[in-house]
Amino acid sequence: MDFAFDARTEELRGQLTEFMDSHIYPSEPIFEEQLEKRENPWEQPPIIDDLKQEARSRGLWNLFLPGEHGGGLTNLQYAPLAELTGRSPELAPAALNCAAPDTGNMEVLTMFGTPAQKEQWLQPLLEGEIRSAFCMTEPDVASSDASNISTRIERDGNEYVINGRKWWSSGAMSPRCKIFIVMGKTDPSSHRHRQQSMILVPRDAPGVNIKRGMHVFGYTDGSHGGHAEIEFTDVRVPVQNIISGEGDGFAIAQARLGPGRIHHAMRLIGMSERALEAMCRRVTSRVAFGKSIAEQGVVQEWIADSRIKIEQLRLLVLKTAWLMDTVGNKGAHTEIQAIKVAAPSVATWIIDRAIQAHGGGGVSQDFPVAALYAHARTLHLADGPDEVHKRSLAHRELRKYETR
Amino acid sequence: MDFAFDARTEELRGQLTEFMDSHIYPSEPIFEEQLEKRENPWEQPPIIDDLKQEARSRGLWNLFLPGEHGGGLTNLQYAPLAELTGRSPELAPAALNCAAPDTGNMEVLTMFGTPAQKEQWLQPLLEGEIRSAFCMTEPDVASSDASNISTRIERDGNEYVINGRKWWSSGAMSPRCKIFIVMGKTDPSSHRHRQQSMILVPRDAPGVNIKRGMHVFGYTDGSHGGHAEIEFTDVRVPVQNIISGEGDGFAIAQARLGPGRIHHAMRLIGMSERALEAMCRRVTSRVAFGKSIAEQGVVQEWIADSRIKIEQLRLLVLKTAWLMDTVGNKGAHTEIQAIKVAAPSVATWIIDRAIQAHGGGGVSQDFPVAALYAHARTLHLADGPDEVHKRSLAHRELRKYETR
Amino acid sequence: MDFAFDARTEELRGQLTEFMDSHIYPSEPIFEEQLEKRENPWEQPPIIDDLKQEARSRGLWNLFLPGEHGGGLTNLQYAPLAELTGRSPELAPAALNCAAPDTGNMEVLTMFGTPAQKEQWLQPLLEGEIRSAFCMTEPDVASSDASNISTRIERDGNEYVINGRKWWSSGAMSPRCKIFIVMGKTDPSSHRHRQQSMILVPRDAPGVNIKRGMHVFGYTDGSHGGHAEIEFTDVRVPVQNIISGEGDGFAIAQARLGPGRIHHAMRLIGMSERALEAMCRRVTSRVAFGKSIAEQGVVQEWIADSRIKIEQLRLLVLKTAWLMDTVGNKGAHTEIQAIKVAAPSVATWIIDRAIQAHGGGGVSQDFPVAALYAHARTLHLADGPDEVHKRSLAHRELRKYETR
Amino acid sequence: MDFAFDARTEELRGQLTEFMDSHIYPSEPIFEEQLEKRENPWEQPPIIDDLKQEARSRGLWNLFLPGEHGGGLTNLQYAPLAELTGRSPELAPAALNCAAPDTGNMEVLTMFGTPAQKEQWLQPLLEGEIRSAFCMTEPDVASSDASNISTRIERDGNEYVINGRKWWSSGAMSPRCKIFIVMGKTDPSSHRHRQQSMILVPRDAPGVNIKRGMHVFGYTDGSHGGHAEIEFTDVRVPVQNIISGEGDGFAIAQARLGPGRIHHAMRLIGMSERALEAMCRRVTSRVAFGKSIAEQGVVQEWIADSRIKIEQLRLLVLKTAWLMDTVGNKGAHTEIQAIKVAAPSVATWIIDRAIQAHGGGGVSQDFPVAALYAHARTLHLADGPDEVHKRSLAHRELRKYETR
Repeated sequence: MDFAFDARTEELRGQLTEFMDSHIYPSEPIFEEQLEKRENPWEQPPIIDDLKQEARSRGLWNLFLPGEHGGGLTNLQYAPLAELTGRSPELAPAALNCAAPDTGNMEVLTMFGTPAQKEQWLQPLLEGEIRSAFCMTEPDVASSDASNISTRIERDGNEYVINGRKWWSSGAMSPRCKIFIVMGKTDPSSHRHRQQSMILVPRDAPGVNIKRGMHVFGYTDGSHGGHAEIEFTDVRVPVQNIISGEGDGFAIAQARLGPGRIHHAMRLIGMSERALEAMCRRVTSRVAFGKSIAEQGVVQEWIADSRIKIEQLRLLVLKTAWLMDTVGNKGAHTEIQAIKVAAPSVATWIIDRAIQAHGGGGVSQDFPVAALYAHARTLHLADGPDEVHKRSLAHRELRKYETR
Repeated sequence: MDFAFDARTEELRGQLTEFMDSHIYPSEPIFEEQLEKRENPWEQPPIIDDLKQEARSRGLWNLFLPGEHGGGLTNLQYAPLAELTGRSPELAPAALNCAAPDTGNMEVLTMFGTPAQKEQWLQPLLEGEIRSAFCMTEPDVASSDASNISTRIERDGNEYVINGRKWWSSGAMSPRCKIFIVMGKTDPSSHRHRQQSMILVPRDAPGVNIKRGMHVFGYTDGSHGGHAEIEFTDVRVPVQNIISGEGDGFAIAQARLGPGRIHHAMRLIGMSERALEAMCRRVTSRVAFGKSIAEQGVVQEWIADSRIKIEQLRLLVLKTAWLMDTVGNKGAHTEIQAIKVAAPSVATWIIDRAIQAHGGGGVSQDFPVAALYAHARTLHLADGPDEVHKRSLAHRELRKYETR
Repeated sequence: MDFAFDARTEELRGQLTEFMDSHIYPSEPIFEEQLEKRENPWEQPPIIDDLKQEARSRGLWNLFLPGEHGGGLTNLQYAPLAELTGRSPELAPAALNCAAPDTGNMEVLTMFGTPAQKEQWLQPLLEGEIRSAFCMTEPDVASSDASNISTRIERDGNEYVINGRKWWSSGAMSPRCKIFIVMGKTDPSSHRHRQQSMILVPRDAPGVNIKRGMHVFGYTDGSHGGHAEIEFTDVRVPVQNIISGEGDGFAIAQARLGPGRIHHAMRLIGMSERALEAMCRRVTSRVAFGKSIAEQGVVQEWIADSRIKIEQLRLLVLKTAWLMDTVGNKGAHTEIQAIKVAAPSVATWIIDRAIQAHGGGGVSQDFPVAALYAHARTLHLADGPDEVHKRSLAHRELRKYETR
Repeated sequence: MDFAFDARTEELRGQLTEFMDSHIYPSEPIFEEQLEKRENPWEQPPIIDDLKQEARSRGLWNLFLPGEHGGGLTNLQYAPLAELTGRSPELAPAALNCAAPDTGNMEVLTMFGTPAQKEQWLQPLLEGEIRSAFCMTEPDVASSDASNISTRIERDGNEYVINGRKWWSSGAMSPRCKIFIVMGKTDPSSHRHRQQSMILVPRDAPGVNIKRGMHVFGYTDGSHGGHAEIEFTDVRVPVQNIISGEGDGFAIAQARLGPGRIHHAMRLIGMSERALEAMCRRVTSRVAFGKSIAEQGVVQEWIADSRIKIEQLRLLVLKTAWLMDTVGNKGAHTEIQAIKVAAPSVATWIIDRAIQAHGGGGVSQDFPVAALYAHARTLHLADGPDEVHKRSLAHRELRKYETR
């Protein structure tokens, strides 16, 4: 057992920290300014492109992706880098071409794509030239139960015809977004886990109607292409657009989830660290009733509890990454579910306390904490509400005792 | 001891419930549509004016105000009506001319205004013709400690000259807002509680610079005039604009707070009831893993805990109103602080669970719960963060034992 | 709506407070000494008899019982008195002949007993000459579901024959305990709510085997007759011992529960107040790191939160009592369940914080808080675990929306 | 970074697990029986001696102690073994001669003892022939602030004279306990951290008055020598009995704490695992309202949350052990404080839920959970209340930002 990062990780952490300090944090106010000024509410501020170029020139590019096309890192090596990017969640992941949902989509194409699919869509994604969306969740059903998903993908000759309604398709409002991976039913009569397929749908295909952007509290997340509601009406794509094969949708979704949860969890830790830092800075700079707010016992409890929570959570996420690297996603199932639940819980707790420590400014646009909260809060729901994962985890725990 | 509402209260509750059912709830989607379409982001949708007219014609007008100019109700009689308006916080309080901060400002003018001040400002407020703002909190200091407030109000001949910076001046972004009550220091050398004064400043006075609207978790609250940051630079008003007298600011602020806390607390209960209702409706209409979400034990716990919390909180707020009516605000000091802390705590807990029960929709614009959360969350901070009130409450509790 | 106690209540509260101050609190150390010295671990210390005599002479006797045989008080009038007795839960309820389970048993006999049953058992209970036990919970089944209860009560000629095993029969270890009310199945084939009956079984009946006393976190509660495990083997009693009639057991249990929950809840409030007082006294008398513990912000939060929780809870319990008086137990069903859950929750939270504020002494015999904790903790389980009541309460809440 | 135990650890875990299964768990009911029957309430049941002999014969002896006299293990290697012993906290640590406070005392003597002190006291402790106590906490002061400790150790010629009062001297009630390490002031005028010294005091020295055993809730912990209150009145010991030197008390106390906290924390994890196992077994074996309690959603949440909490906590404790091994106790200061706070918090939460899942049995002597709770609850207080450690941890966190 060894709790030190390996040399490659330390080297990259150093480089990334340097990049954050020299480029990311100083770009945050510029980003905010450009946000205010842009005309299309779904376009990203130009500073992001500058940061992408800089990051790429430093070799901080596609680090999330194992193998030759990416950083060639293990999950355990990438995890601490994902944490660092979480400290500036609107800029850093995009700058490194490591932003969801592109990361998951690139993983899917790397693992399951045909050579033609890779050339057409994976390559420009890896280059950061286009963005993509993942169309899974539906407004009409509890989508945490994948068998509820009702979008139809029906074969008609050499084409598939897609009909259905999706929402929370993150990034899809952006004009840069060119391709969707859509989950839907090819065979409703098949076994529960073989009904679903995934298929590539160009954003500009006839019958694709991008209806509106969903809000997260009052945010549109416009700079990252928002979260779209999309209607698919008799959308036709060639049969070659199917990913892997008919009925493989559920298995692809499972494969996509593992690394995604590590990324989300580590970014949430970075967000928690950022919030804790903001809290500490704020309370040391304000005075009420004759003493610094930092001297208030209650605030000190928040700070201590924050640190204690973060240290525990980070180790669990790193162990999960290590398990995925050593015994595979299936062997890490319990831990993957545990961090899905634990990470948003820690993050929202800490960020909420940071908001409180900021006074009125905490809920406003003047400090990062309110937006961090909204972002973290959604992760209690994204990929299925916490409760679904807890129930599944409990079933596995209980099973240990049933056979005895 | 008697827990039944009196006849007058029951009558008004019936009338208000009828009005909510027939006019307020059906207007909510119209309000949302008009919001989308309006040009000035700080103007209120026209449906509000229709609702005001209807409410007034039904005698549901200025009910918050005791005495002949208002509904003539006690705090205890008005409280359950405030709860009902909290069920639709963007429409109902405004429709009844019972929205903050106008309510508090009208109370101040009723209690402390000169006949001329009343004629010029109270009358149009009572008529619902204009709106007003209350400029207290400052960005540069922890304003929960009123002695920190640093805006200067200096006499110069027959005028007062005002210099300072305020934020969270709710309503001030609206073109309908015509008058500010500004808190500031007239005599920094005086006793801690005699340094501050309140003064009337027309919104269009030279030197008043309305800089921007503060956001609340991405929301601008634009339909109610937002929350402004305002700079006062050598703003001059006649000496007659002082309220009550120099040095009375702290006392007026105290007098303003009592009823305001009852109103906020009761509206938070209404918001909690609305969220609980939304949660119940949502979970009975969705199925996951083969059964209704309403059949999940965890969701049932949330519902039961919500009901248990609401019932306790409501009684404490009503008792506080009764104490204010019978022994005065000072005698109700402990209870006023208790509800300041307890009400947002109950409301944010319930609304957060309601969000979770909604799945992804919960954080979006499609259900009221996300906006309710943002609104309720601010009340952990407005009028001073919870922690300040708890500390003061604890001091009073501890004092019981110090002398023994 | 009126939050003031009526004159009779205020008078009795004054008398009881005076009795607590002059007799109960000063007797607590004597009680502890006598506990140490007594030979039979299940006998009560003699000071209790002295206190009973004194209380009775002051008219503070059987106040729990409505009607001519008791104090003639409403639930709402008795509730605040029950709270006061909870401040010294080992002495005060017994001194006033208002201790569980005798109170519930006397209520049952008053409501459902035959004249003969009343003469033989109710009379000496009312006189405080004997004590009684209530044998409901069984070790072998989840007894919160009354239909699980499996003790058999079978008619054989002019006798009933009882076979089964009970535990948590409080008071039954005491030599003063003379009579049991036993719940069991007379007709397993009947409707779910008509299978059970209640029957009177003298403690010295042949076949009654009092096996042992159950512990509560190491405490035996010996001074009040402990909590017995009892085996009934072919125990025979005359048919006249049935209470009300065959099949009435469930209904009697329901009738017994309502007032019992008010009593428990109000005593828990008294226990909470005692713990809060102990916490305040302790923290004002200790110094660490250069300042009084009372000056620590965290401790102040505990104190404020305690006060805020108590005030809300008390009002809900009083309202529940008022509902029982005005619309009956059935109309107060939701509230009765709410206080069943809320009261132990508030009490264990406050007492736990009081323990923490005491340092090491908090868990010891030197301060009342550890024993208060153990007592309060059991009430999350007694009369069914909280979760059962929450589920039932949630079902009622959800039902409001099902029909719409 | 590597999350696998090394080979030596795995080997010992296997051996210890085998010993737990074959000897410890089967001895638990025997232990309970012998407890009931023994005459001296402060003597340990004879089964412990049998287990010690067996454990020693298997090489499972003094594993806590680094170096040649003990198991020669690192903190990281011993930690998972301490966890296993925590699963049966009354038997396993004692059986392995790894029970507090002997462990800490043996560490102190190993590190700071003179050859004579080692021969006289360390040797028989290592042999498991005698037991020892650590007399630090005092009833009259908040002992978390070591500078409050007021016991005097005054030199008088070739002797030290000790006067003072201690409590919570665990183990000191036992007739097997032969030696105390006493903390007291040798020089009140010295620097805050140089006033205190530690000295060896035989339990049978004249002037040592062992007054009574402190209770923990209702438990006496008699089988392990209880927790004594001790009066020292003019107790004289030779000057050779001082440990290390005058003024070294504070430094020795610090050195003693580090490993002790690892041990406590890991045992708490073992206790948590035991409670979780008990909860799972109980809920799968009981039925209420027509389904197994294990199928209740709320219980599943408890189980999932328990597992999620344990996994995080364990990693933090292991990392702390690793830090102590690699950078020393000082470098692990933050983590040592974090686990001091986190471990009891996780344990009491889980055990409390396990109690609830057991129904009435949960608070009784029939299941291990009530005793586990009492034990775990004390660790929120032992070695200083959580709040003291949180404050110190927060200060260190805040210091990061003060200099920037």
